[in-house]
Order: sequence, then structure tokens, then C-alpha cells
Amino acid sequence: MKRIFPHRHLLGIEGLTRDQILALLDAAESFFDVSRRSVRKVPTLRGKTIINLFYEASTRTRTSFELAGKRLSADVINISASTSSTVKGESLLDTVQNLQSMQPDVLVIRHSASGAPHHVAARIRAAVVNAGDGTHEHPTQALLDAFTIRRKKGAFEGLTVAICGDVLHSRVARSNVRLLNALGARVRLAGPRTLLPPAAESLGAEVYPRLEPALEGADVVMMLRVQRERLQGAFLPTSREYSRAFGLNAARLSLAKPDALVMHPGPMNRGVEIDPAVADGPQSVILDQVEAGVAVRMAVLWVLAAESNEPPPAAG
Amino acid sequence: MKRIFPHRHLLGIEGLTRDQILALLDAAESFFDVSRRSVRKVPTLRGKTIINLFYEASTRTRTSFELAGKRLSADVINISASTSSTVKGESLLDTVQNLQSMQPDVLVIRHSASGAPHHVAARIRAAVVNAGDGTHEHPTQALLDAFTIRRKKGAFEGLTVAICGDVLHSRVARSNVRLLNALGARVRLAGPRTLLPPAAESLGAEVYPRLEPALEGADVVMMLRVQRERLQGAFLPTSREYSRAFGLNAARLSLAKPDALVMHPGPMNRGVEIDPAVADGPQSVILDQVEAGVAVRMAVLWVLAAESNEPPPAAG
Amino acid sequence: MKRIFPHRHLLGIEGLTRDQILALLDAAESFFDVSRRSVRKVPTLRGKTIINLFYEASTRTRTSFELAGKRLSADVINISASTSSTVKGESLLDTVQNLQSMQPDVLVIRHSASGAPHHVAARIRAAVVNAGDGTHEHPTQALLDAFTIRRKKGAFEGLTVAICGDVLHSRVARSNVRLLNALGARVRLAGPRTLLPPAAESLGAEVYPRLEPALEGADVVMMLRVQRERLQGAFLPTSREYSRAFGLNAARLSLAKPDALVMHPGPMNRGVEIDPAVADGPQSVILDQVEAGVAVRMAVLWVLAAESNEPPPAAG
Repeated sequence: MKRIFPHRHLLGIEGLTRDQILALLDAAESFFDVSRRSVRKVPTLRGKTIINLFYEASTRTRTSFELAGKRLSADVINISASTSSTVKGESLLDTVQNLQSMQPDVLVIRHSASGAPHHVAARIRAAVVNAGDGTHEHPTQALLDAFTIRRKKGAFEGLTVAICGDVLHSRVARSNVRLLNALGARVRLAGPRTLLPPAAESLGAEVYPRLEPALEGADVVMMLRVQRERLQGAFLPTSREYSRAFGLNAARLSLAKPDALVMHPGPMNRGVEIDPAVADGPQSVILDQVEAGVAVRMAVLWVLAAESNEPPPAAG
Repeated sequence: MKRIFPHRHLLGIEGLTRDQILALLDAAESFFDVSRRSVRKVPTLRGKTIINLFYEASTRTRTSFELAGKRLSADVINISASTSSTVKGESLLDTVQNLQSMQPDVLVIRHSASGAPHHVAARIRAAVVNAGDGTHEHPTQALLDAFTIRRKKGAFEGLTVAICGDVLHSRVARSNVRLLNALGARVRLAGPRTLLPPAAESLGAEVYPRLEPALEGADVVMMLRVQRERLQGAFLPTSREYSRAFGLNAARLSLAKPDALVMHPGPMNRGVEIDPAVADGPQSVILDQVEAGVAVRMAVLWVLAAESNEPPPAAG
Repeated sequence: MKRIFPHRHLLGIEGLTRDQILALLDAAESFFDVSRRSVRKVPTLRGKTIINLFYEASTRTRTSFELAGKRLSADVINISASTSSTVKGESLLDTVQNLQSMQPDVLVIRHSASGAPHHVAARIRAAVVNAGDGTHEHPTQALLDAFTIRRKKGAFEGLTVAICGDVLHSRVARSNVRLLNALGARVRLAGPRTLLPPAAESLGAEVYPRLEPALEGADVVMMLRVQRERLQGAFLPTSREYSRAFGLNAARLSLAKPDALVMHPGPMNRGVEIDPAVADGPQSVILDQVEAGVAVRMAVLWVLAAESNEPPPAAG
């Protein structure tokens, strides 16, 4: 298999080519059987060690990576910051170098500081997967979004994707803009002016301070989570005000193409950025995204471990 | 194998027939070898995924389910509410639907709200096991209690079982009353009037506001935990007062049959509802209950997974 | 294989003979392949159950034991006190007896009370491994330190090892003094008078209230962590004062032999007990210690499980 990750890590979508992204999506497809049911167990990574090091709480992403590793038959170790020796004041780099000495093959890291995985990757031998760093990138989320879109739409060229909400704080948005641009889709960003990045156009997207024009004729509508935990101190409209101006409801969705997909990275604030009727409606592929997440992460772990220069396990 | 769970879930003892309960106890017996030692590893559930979703802390129940799953060779994922995205305000149903999209075969759920597992089960494809919901049911506890009783007494018909203490808040009591009634035992409930349910007789039991008459001639004495964490605001006697009136000590135990079993679902408040000399005495089968717990949970997981319509794993 | 642990447990270095210690180090060597790479997977403990019961937070030790167990193909269960039923007030002994009833083969326990593992070991059938008890012992740490020293120095006879810092509260120091004495090394203890045990000489070591004379001509310099969490109420110098008097920097290290090893059990307080330039310098074997930790724990788990009288798994 030709190398997908020449740099041994998945730190972001930035730096990945169209071909590399499509090769990953193809690898993820291989984790479904002919009836499109998820593959539950393969011996591919037997004897490999995966460490999930999460400095931020997460049900879905941690569970998705853990399940992906276990279905590949790897040994999976979870470490969450709240129970870790970080309470004793050890630095991130010391923690990671110690873990490195236990010879993991892959280190999956989530951290509140943008750039933390890059900082780590430059200093250890294990392959590093960024599972979300600050407001920077969340590459496996963008890959699973792309996987979901490709399944429904076949290709990316000519698609218009509207990413809506708190773009400023969203690593999901940042990774998706990069990926969709690389694959030839047109991206629109919409949100309150205070929640749009200063030079949003430079990301390679059209920018809209109102929701409606961004939705018009869109093939995909991706709603972002209002991340109240990241908004402390910033101006924040009430949930009701936010919903009135930027919530996706049936009326607004009708501005998009009739077969437009509705996406959300979760967890949803129902009634704030998305109306329950839309979240659970026929155009929603929100749960398909979650299913795709396990397959995409299996693909990433598989390719990274296969491309690492680790020797085969000595026994077993 | 004939179906034990026609409804794909184990939500409570309610709705299970005598034959179904006995079939589960028989299945649990198969997880001991001829020397009555626990079976440690079988490949039965290889390629199956079990998620333990615990919204209340628990050492014994979570560990018991985790061990049961691992000894069956399933992939087991633990999620505890304190580290989950529930801190981000996601609803139980959204959390569960997301987990469902990761294609688990069995979802084991403990929740402080009575009925939560039923609410969940109606909306997902995975088999749901109630690991304790509010003050409602705790079916695997009742099954392991029954397993323990059957091992020592052979059968249930004609037995008198006294369940004593805080019946009002006890899901263990509720599940046991149902199970023991289904199997033909006679059940007595004893406790302070304030800790007995309003219409306790309607549960199918004799009710005693004092401990002594309930113990008289009993074959099994099941002491309930004083759940101080559930009693806030309610009238609560001091531990010393409680012990004096409702604690099981050697003198009181002598009112029961000489070979009466002493049981407790744990964790025990030694010196409150049970005297240490009785808890550790020759009639106590409290630790047998814990051992039975792993076997009973292996049986439940095995039967549920076998009876689900899941296809076999595609590979591995 | 001749018995290494005649008493079925690893509660401390105390009581182990030179031959037993060396046999464990040899067993640990077997978990590296001919290229000195860690063995990642062996089926040795398939069907065995290991429970990690941690009453104190720990990244490195818990992860190291978990990884050791998984690489041996055991089923590994983690229990941390913060999520356990200890919040419901159950005693250590009740918790452990309950876990025993789930038939684990090995119970790894860390506890803030000195002697807790001994208390437990006397009352259960599983093999007990002390993963650190109060200020008493941390035997696998001493074994991994010895493993690291032997790899670099070949033997222990004639070596001078300086253990420096908060000796009073250090279970690492106590286990290392015992082990190094048993293997024929000479031990020096250095630290502020208030952080030296009252009769330190009786441990079998020379005692120095200043760092410099302890370092002179040493073959190994082992720095201890300033454990601020254990020092509440005691007189505690500021970090700057401590560093000035007892921190290991390049100038002080030059007092030791030119090829002296620098060791630290972690987590390090950089700039307090150890200067970053020394921690990351060419004489540092701090990360080798962590790597050795997994191999040493695999050896301990393997030997304990092999020497237990457990029957083979009934199936699988």
C-alpha cells in the first residue's frame, strides 16, 4: 500500500492532499461488509498498543477511538486528565515522553491547547492522532463528515456546503473547510459576526453574517455546537436569541436543496442551534456521522500502525 | 436454544416467566466447571461489543458486568457519567442514540431515574440490560440472589424469604419480590413504617413494621442497605437507633430457621443494618452472591447477544 | 521454574532474597527480544484476571500495570477510588473481599495507608501486588530501578547509589534501600534534616544532611520527588530554596563519577529537585526506568500467576 501519511502522524487536515484524503475514506469503506454493516473484529492490530490521552472530557470521540482500536484487536489504554498525574503538576511533554517509553504504537491526544499534538509529535516515536486541539483542528471529525457526505452524494466536486454557527471557536469548522476545499467543494461559513474569525474569507470560504443566504441552494448544512464552555467572557446571546437568528429549523432548511443533508458533530443543543424536528428529520445524517466515525478511526489507526516502522510483535 | 428474552432486553424481572428465570439460572450454572470453579474465558462473544453506561457510581456492579463481558471475549467499553459529555448537557436519549450508531450489541445502563432503561430500550436496536434504575428494578441482582438461594436450598417452592430494611427506596427489593413470587417462594417485607412502600402488600408480600416477626421461621434473610444518599430530607433514624430496631444480629437471626441464609446486596453498612458477626458468620452467603453475579451476568449477556438478530462478525 | 514468591504476593522488597530479586530481573529480561525491543503480546496469561485497585491517582504506575497485563493477554479491570463504592463508605476489606469473589488471579493495589496491601493479602486468595502503600514500600519501582541499573552497570556489588531528597515520605527510597542492600550496593541517603527519617542509618545506609558529600564518587544518583501533597503542615522550604540546597544540577552532578546514572521515579518537578538540563542530559536514564517498568511488571504478574495454584481456564 502506498504511504498515506508521509509524516507518520494525523495532526490535522492541513497538509493532506486530495489523494491522501480519498485513500483514507476508501480504507474506511473497507470496514463495512457487503451489506454495509460495520465490521466488528479484525486481527489487524493485534500486538499493537494505542493510548488515548484525553485532557478534555468526551464521550463520543473517546468511545469511538477506543472501539476502533479494540475492533482492530489492539491493546487500548485510556488516560483522562482528571485521574492522571497532571494533578501532580507534570508537564504535557513529560507525561507524553513517559508514555512513549511504554512503547505505544499510536498516541491519540485531545487537548485544550491548540497545537498540543504538534508539540508532542515532534518529540516522540509513536504515531500521533489529533483528537481535537483547542480551536485548531479535529481531523477525524472532518474525515467522518466527508465519509458521510460521499456516501450520500457520491462526490464532492460542485457541492455547496454551509457550515453555520460558532465558527470562531470551532476546530470542526476549521478542519472541514480545509478538507472540503481540498476535495473541490464550495464552502460557506455563516454565523454571528462576533463568532466568525477575523479573516474568515482567507480560509477559502464565502462568509455570511446571516444564516439564510448561506443556506440558499446548499447541498449540505453543517450546524456547529454552541460551545458555552468556550464562550465565557465573550458576548453571548441567550439561547432563545441565538435560536431565533441562527437556529436551523424546517423553514430555514427549505432554503437549501430539497435533498440537502443536515449534519452536526454533536453533542447537540436541541432547540438552540438546531430544532429537534430537523435533527431527527429525514434529511438528517447526524447518526450516520457517528457510525462513520468508528470506521474512519479504524482506517486512521490501521494506516498509521501499518506505515510505522515498528517491527512485528516478537511473540503471540 | 429456545428464546429466553422475547423482547430482546432485560429491563426488569417484571414480565419474565418462571421458565425464563430458571433458564437464565441454568445458563449461569454453565459458567462453572465440574469443580464449581468459575469459567474464566470462553470465545462466545468474540466480535461483540458491550457498552457499560453508568450514570451512578458503582464498583461491584460495573466490575461484575465488565468482567462478565471480558470473560466472554467481548469488547467492553465503560462510560461513566462523570467523564461523559453529559457535562455538556446532552440528553440521555441523544447519548444513547449516538452510542447505538457505534453498533454495540448490548448496552448495560445504570441510571438514577426509574424507567430510564425502558425509555432507552424503546428507541435503540441494541439489547438493553437494566443495571439498576432509580428505585425501580435491578434484575441481575435478583437473578444472582436467586442463583445463590437455589444453590443452597435446591428449589424455591415453600421457602420463606424475609427482605428487611429500607424497602421503599430499594430496587433490589422490588426485583426480588417479583422474582421470588414468580418462583413460588413466600416473601415478607420488614422495615420502619416510613421506609415501607404505601401499598406494600399489593407487591405480593406480607408486610411487617417490626423485624422479629418477619424473621420467625424464615429460610432466607435478605438485609437491605440503608441508602443514606437516597434519604436526604426524609426522616432518618441515627445509625444506632436503626441498628437497635432493625439491625440483624445473632439474637435476631436465631428467630429464623437454624440453616437460614443471610444475604445482602452490598455495599454493607456494618453495624447499621447488619452486625459484623452475622455478615461474616457461617450462615452468610454474601460473598457467594458476588461470585454468582459474574456468572449470572455472563448468562444474561450471552443469551441476549445470541438471541439478537445481529449477523456474525464479518472477519476475525 | 523454581518458586520466586513463596508467599504468593509481592508486598515489598522486604523479605525477598538476592536470588529472588535476580530471578525477577531475569524474567523481566525475557520480555525484550534479541534487539532489546519490548515484547508486545504473549498469550501467557490468557484467561487470567488482573484487577488494578488504585486508591491514589497515578498515570504511570496504573498505565504500566494495565499495559503489562494486556500484553500478557490477561483480562484487566481498573478500579479507581474516586468512582468506586468507597464513596458509599464501604471498608477496604469489604471491597477487596467482594473483588475476591469475582475470582481475580492478581490484585494490584495502591493505597495511601502504609500496610494496606499486607492487611488485604492476609485475607484473600488472589496474589496481591503492592503498587505503593503510603510511605512504606513500592517494590515494583525498586525492581525497575534495579533492572535499569543492571542494564547499564552489569552488577550491583561495589556500586555506590545516592538517594536524595524527601527520604522521609518516600516509599520509593525505602524499597530501594532494601533492594540495593540485598544486592550488595552501598546506599547513601541525602536530604534536609527534616525530610530524613529519625534513624535513617538503621535502614542500612549512610546519611548526609547535605547533597554534595553524598554525590561524591557515586555511580548512581537517584533524585526523589518533592511530594508537596504529603508535606502539608510540615516545614517546607520554597521551591527556590529547595532547588538551591538540594536540586541536582550539572555542577553538583560533576561530583559523582563521570558515568554516573541519573534516575528519578517521576513525576518530576523540573527546576525543583532536578534541573531540566540534567533530567534530559546524557547521563539520565529516567525514561529507561519507565520502559523497564512495563517489563518488570510483566515479569511480576507472570511469575505470580504461574506460581498461584489456580487451575487452568475451563474453556477458550
